[in-house]
Amino acid sequence: MLGSTHGTLTTDSRRARVIACGEQPAPAVHGRPAATDDLDVSGRPLYAGVPDLDRFFRPESVAVVGASDAEGRPNTGITRQLLAWAERVGARLHPVHPTRETVFGLPCVPSVAELPEQVDLAVLLVSDPLPVIEQLAETKVRFAVAFASGFAETGTVGAAAQDRLADAVRRSGIRSGLRLLGPNTNLNAFEKFRDDLDGPAIALITQSGHQGRPVFTLQELGIRVSHWAPTGNEADLESADFISYFSEQPEVGAIACYVEGLKDGRSFLLAADRAARRGVPVVAVKVGRTETGARTAASHTGKLTGADAVVDAAMRQYGVVRVDGLDELQDTAALLARARPPSADGVAVYSISGGTGAHFSDLATEAGLRLPPLSPAKQAELHQWIPEYLDVTNPIDNGGHPVGDWRGRKIIDAILADPAVGVLICPITGPFPPMSDKLARDLVDAAEQTDKLVCVVWGSPVGTESAYRETLLGSSRVATFRTFANCITAVRAHLDHARFTASYRSPFDEAPRTPSPSCRKAQALMRPGSRLSEHAAKQLLRAYGIRVPREQLVTSAAASVRAAGLVGYPVVMKASGARLAHKTELGLVKIGLTSASQVRDSYRELTDIARYEDVSLDGVLVCQMVEQGVEMVVGVTHDDLFGPTVTVGLGGVLVEVLQDTAVRVPPFGEDQARSMLDELRGRALLDGVRGRPPADLDALVEVVLRVQRMALELDTDLSELDINPLMVLPRGQGAVALDALAICR
Amino acid sequence: MLGSTHGTLTTDSRRARVIACGEQPAPAVHGRPAATDDLDVSGRPLYAGVPDLDRFFRPESVAVVGASDAEGRPNTGITRQLLAWAERVGARLHPVHPTRETVFGLPCVPSVAELPEQVDLAVLLVSDPLPVIEQLAETKVRFAVAFASGFAETGTVGAAAQDRLADAVRRSGIRSGLRLLGPNTNLNAFEKFRDDLDGPAIALITQSGHQGRPVFTLQELGIRVSHWAPTGNEADLESADFISYFSEQPEVGAIACYVEGLKDGRSFLLAADRAARRGVPVVAVKVGRTETGARTAASHTGKLTGADAVVDAAMRQYGVVRVDGLDELQDTAALLARARPPSADGVAVYSISGGTGAHFSDLATEAGLRLPPLSPAKQAELHQWIPEYLDVTNPIDNGGHPVGDWRGRKIIDAILADPAVGVLICPITGPFPPMSDKLARDLVDAAEQTDKLVCVVWGSPVGTESAYRETLLGSSRVATFRTFANCITAVRAHLDHARFTASYRSPFDEAPRTPSPSCRKAQALMRPGSRLSEHAAKQLLRAYGIRVPREQLVTSAAASVRAAGLVGYPVVMKASGARLAHKTELGLVKIGLTSASQVRDSYRELTDIARYEDVSLDGVLVCQMVEQGVEMVVGVTHDDLFGPTVTVGLGGVLVEVLQDTAVRVPPFGEDQARSMLDELRGRALLDGVRGRPPADLDALVEVVLRVQRMALELDTDLSELDINPLMVLPRGQGAVALDALAICR
Repeated sequence: MLGSTHGTLTTDSRRARVIACGEQPAPAVHGRPAATDDLDVSGRPLYAGVPDLDRFFRPESVAVVGASDAEGRPNTGITRQLLAWAERVGARLHPVHPTRETVFGLPCVPSVAELPEQVDLAVLLVSDPLPVIEQLAETKVRFAVAFASGFAETGTVGAAAQDRLADAVRRSGIRSGLRLLGPNTNLNAFEKFRDDLDGPAIALITQSGHQGRPVFTLQELGIRVSHWAPTGNEADLESADFISYFSEQPEVGAIACYVEGLKDGRSFLLAADRAARRGVPVVAVKVGRTETGARTAASHTGKLTGADAVVDAAMRQYGVVRVDGLDELQDTAALLARARPPSADGVAVYSISGGTGAHFSDLATEAGLRLPPLSPAKQAELHQWIPEYLDVTNPIDNGGHPVGDWRGRKIIDAILADPAVGVLICPITGPFPPMSDKLARDLVDAAEQTDKLVCVVWGSPVGTESAYRETLLGSSRVATFRTFANCITAVRAHLDHARFTASYRSPFDEAPRTPSPSCRKAQALMRPGSRLSEHAAKQLLRAYGIRVPREQLVTSAAASVRAAGLVGYPVVMKASGARLAHKTELGLVKIGLTSASQVRDSYRELTDIARYEDVSLDGVLVCQMVEQGVEMVVGVTHDDLFGPTVTVGLGGVLVEVLQDTAVRVPPFGEDQARSMLDELRGRALLDGVRGRPPADLDALVEVVLRVQRMALELDTDLSELDINPLMVLPRGQGAVALDALAICR
Repeated sequence: MLGSTHGTLTTDSRRARVIACGEQPAPAVHGRPAATDDLDVSGRPLYAGVPDLDRFFRPESVAVVGASDAEGRPNTGITRQLLAWAERVGARLHPVHPTRETVFGLPCVPSVAELPEQVDLAVLLVSDPLPVIEQLAETKVRFAVAFASGFAETGTVGAAAQDRLADAVRRSGIRSGLRLLGPNTNLNAFEKFRDDLDGPAIALITQSGHQGRPVFTLQELGIRVSHWAPTGNEADLESADFISYFSEQPEVGAIACYVEGLKDGRSFLLAADRAARRGVPVVAVKVGRTETGARTAASHTGKLTGADAVVDAAMRQYGVVRVDGLDELQDTAALLARARPPSADGVAVYSISGGTGAHFSDLATEAGLRLPPLSPAKQAELHQWIPEYLDVTNPIDNGGHPVGDWRGRKIIDAILADPAVGVLICPITGPFPPMSDKLARDLVDAAEQTDKLVCVVWGSPVGTESAYRETLLGSSRVATFRTFANCITAVRAHLDHARFTASYRSPFDEAPRTPSPSCRKAQALMRPGSRLSEHAAKQLLRAYGIRVPREQLVTSAAASVRAAGLVGYPVVMKASGARLAHKTELGLVKIGLTSASQVRDSYRELTDIARYEDVSLDGVLVCQMVEQGVEMVVGVTHDDLFGPTVTVGLGGVLVEVLQDTAVRVPPFGEDQARSMLDELRGRALLDGVRGRPPADLDALVEVVLRVQRMALELDTDLSELDINPLMVLPRGQGAVALDALAICR
């Protein structure tokens, strides 16, 4: 049960990658029907079905293969727990064992082929589930769960065994619809859930049972948990399937995930999209996909956005709340599950100590929460009950004493009645029963009378006080935290998620399905396995309507002078060749040439340097010189999990030093392209500094979107694209790609 | 007791600011003797005495002025608590009341003048403590505590009353040595401390009693707390005094502070220095000095380093651990108080679940902890008890079962015996009694046998489990946490503080006490109340040995050509004038001039623009052109709390956009000047990127130190200095200040 690490579960997300421009896309596989229009232009699915897991979580009949009641055998304990669970959910249980007649008094059959009825779920306690899976396909069992370990988590031999298992499920699935959970999973789905708790629940998905325990244990604090899916190695069913399913269950208020690796980037996005469309929050801890050491190593490869930045971006695109600690996962999921949509994003901070209010407000404001000053009328109202010398602007300091009597509830109700206030937070750092017990009770009572969110931070490190244990945790309407930080994180996530949901438009609805006219033109430029020359890479950009400087490729000094005349002075001259990198460092770029003689001399100098450095040229580029803009980079890189990604950043030497870039996973719309710019630390450069004109943001966004289109349409041809620099001119004047690097697959 | 906000307690840190170059420094005031050599060249103290607070915390006799035993009066409850406390510490208590004969059976005197003996401590429960303070001076009472509120925390009228109180204390203090705690303080110092707990203790300092409650409450979890100083408005005794005193008490392992505002920057630094010299860790929550809103507003003023960044830097210079939440304050102070110095900085992460190990390691590594891979021999040793297929490289995954039997303790001892391991962390996310109870017991037992730090994270949100409450909290050798994040923060602080202490050299020992020869030269250039011209500002730099380009100030076209010949082509020409700002934006800078005719034309053009823009010039600067370096900024700004501060950052347009700067509070040594560079995000630019040569770091550091010297020596004359850009040339070639701005007081 413990100790599963699951290895690397990454697979290529492209289930049907034979599509290319002009060809017919192939249907998606894996037991799900896919019409032509279920795929985007890169061949990735635009739709994922939701597996009907009702019978998995609430089966009518269950087979336990490898059941035992012999004392001291591990399967005996498991069988006993499954029996108790079957009884709770009202399922008939059928033990399967080759030699036993009965198990715990129930009649036993020797194999799944001899089960007395068609069962919904077969729990496989055997060490090699493969032969059983093959038998199960004949019996129309709907779900199997394989506990056995020793698969992908142990290395290449185990991974091959897991592939065989996955193949068997896929083959069986096509005939019978069989779906498998595991291998290397456990009993978590069949634990005892409290059924006496009200309100929206947390549904839990984990890839390590031990890591889900704290969220499950929230039930002891009165937080309802409805499901637990321990996905194990995800040979078939994966986290995404459970996200999709849970987001359609009426009792689920939020989905909490502990993820070590994603099996498939696209299926995760489609599941997150489904949750986003339905407004169901997904909160996730996502550990680095490989071990920490490997990640540290990867940071030395010089990539501008490591894979973790891509995961992070993908989650944000679909409103998934990423948190770091399991305590944050618990607190954030609990709040998001139970809080009603906010009527306003204003937060009121109310405390019995001015110090507490100042401290909390300091941290809350820093984290981006908005504490609107209360209106003079509201302040006057509060001063009926709070001494005049105390500040009630927000934070609201009551000085302590008013909470102890009838005034306490009046104050809370008055704050909650303010339309500018959507959230009331009351941090109580030290328990002081004459005040804090009454305050807790008033907050609980007031929360019953409002749709607004009421939060309390119980700051005592002890946590056995009755105001905390009984009063606060006894309420399903007050969100109770133990630290300022977790309260702030959760409230911020709640307000952000509400904003996200209100403006969410699925990018899958607008993703391109057929190649644009640019695609065929661009494909003609591809040179498989090669790097394109700068000139060819710029042709590629032109094919997608991205502006490049006027330029000519020449092969003689005389031609360079003619070209300069056509391009217009001043010009830039650059050596051009497919193998050329680091042109500037080698002295193979000449800028600001203003006369024919300078051009002629430069041609000779460039070809001399190339000869000296022994690099072969296909000529020299004579280019229009473009100045007076902001240098940016726009690029495409391939992510193992998500496929092509689009990056934008500040250009020049700074992109290398500061790595000030933002990344998105296609498909994404114009809103996301614009939000990429907001993520840049050097964003102000685009708005104009030191009297410079603001840059043409619309043109920059348009280039990002055209590059996205190119990334999708040329996915099978293009492994990397880097426009560096893209000179973004002053507003209204466009953007010009001054140099580009393109590598073909 | 609750609800004190204390207003803004900031005062100017310069107690004796009449010093100037060549003059005799004045003695420091405020009841402390100060020899001439107790002041640095800026007139700030280099030494602060430690008030002898033994008789404050453990008095032999106590007067309670305003004592009462009348039912229903607030002073009655306070008197009762003071009686109980006096009994605990063995002090004689003398009630003082104008009309009562006895209070709680003790004989009462009508005024402090009639006390039967010289008391150590007078607790003032009266609403106006001023007259009592004046009487106390005659009685040689050593300490007074004023509970009354209504002083600086309420506005200007209250602040004036507080000043009168402070004056009275100062006058009395000179005669009798009286020191005052408060006003606006409370009973926290006289609470009931547990005396049954062992080991080094936390001493607590707070400016809001309520905010100290969680740390005080740690005693219920078995953490020893020795003192609590509720400093209130700090009319006299301030947080710094308590830091100094606590750092000399043998039972104090760490000092925990909740600070809203510092009374005096320098006294804080001197106290932190004392703690640093003695290796006593100080952990502090520091709220923004002004209210959050004001801070938010300040961020719009365009200052490169806000005051909070200065506080942050000052704390780091003296090894003060700054944390955000009270939970972090508790957990970090508790660990730092009790942990022994680490024998190695390697952290071993050990868990019963591979998922837990991966997750914890991911976060720990990201936070900068070092998890060394265990040696093959150590791994082989561990595999005697842990199945071969589990990874024990570090993190160490035992798969669960070995902890349940005799192997559990063997594994822990083997990890602790590894010399590469200084810290063992065992995260237990879910309680699973058959394993986790035994694991907790083994960890506690093993921790008794080692000097190494053993940490446990008890991840259950419930916290009532006996393995947590009894086993783990029952140990003074295991540091127990509830979240991964707080464990990582505390361990990081412990290792960082040990490193800091090992290499700490007090900057006060080496701070300049007398003006350098540069000072008088520089003072001759000062123009009080004015901004210096670029040329004059550069003379100032030259006076301090900072290199500037060869340049001449000229007032005719012909002179400009002669100057260019002397300076050497190519040259830069700039309009020069005291009121000139934004020269580049106005077109008042010409670069790269290579001929006499260009120089002559440029002279005319610059003077034409100046006429058109109506700016008066004192001439035109003809300067040597310096290229091929890294543009930096180095500057001096004045901080209300700490006085002059020195800033270094990346130059050019980026300093404004990215605010990539580091700041230090003088005095600081070369080590701190170098560490400033390490804080810069764009640091790599200095090391050379894209084949550029590395910059002359030694020269840059030297400029920073010379600017510091200038900041201290010219503190009364210079309000602001900005070298922008400082061109740092390739290694061995120095650094040149290309432009400078200086504003005189």
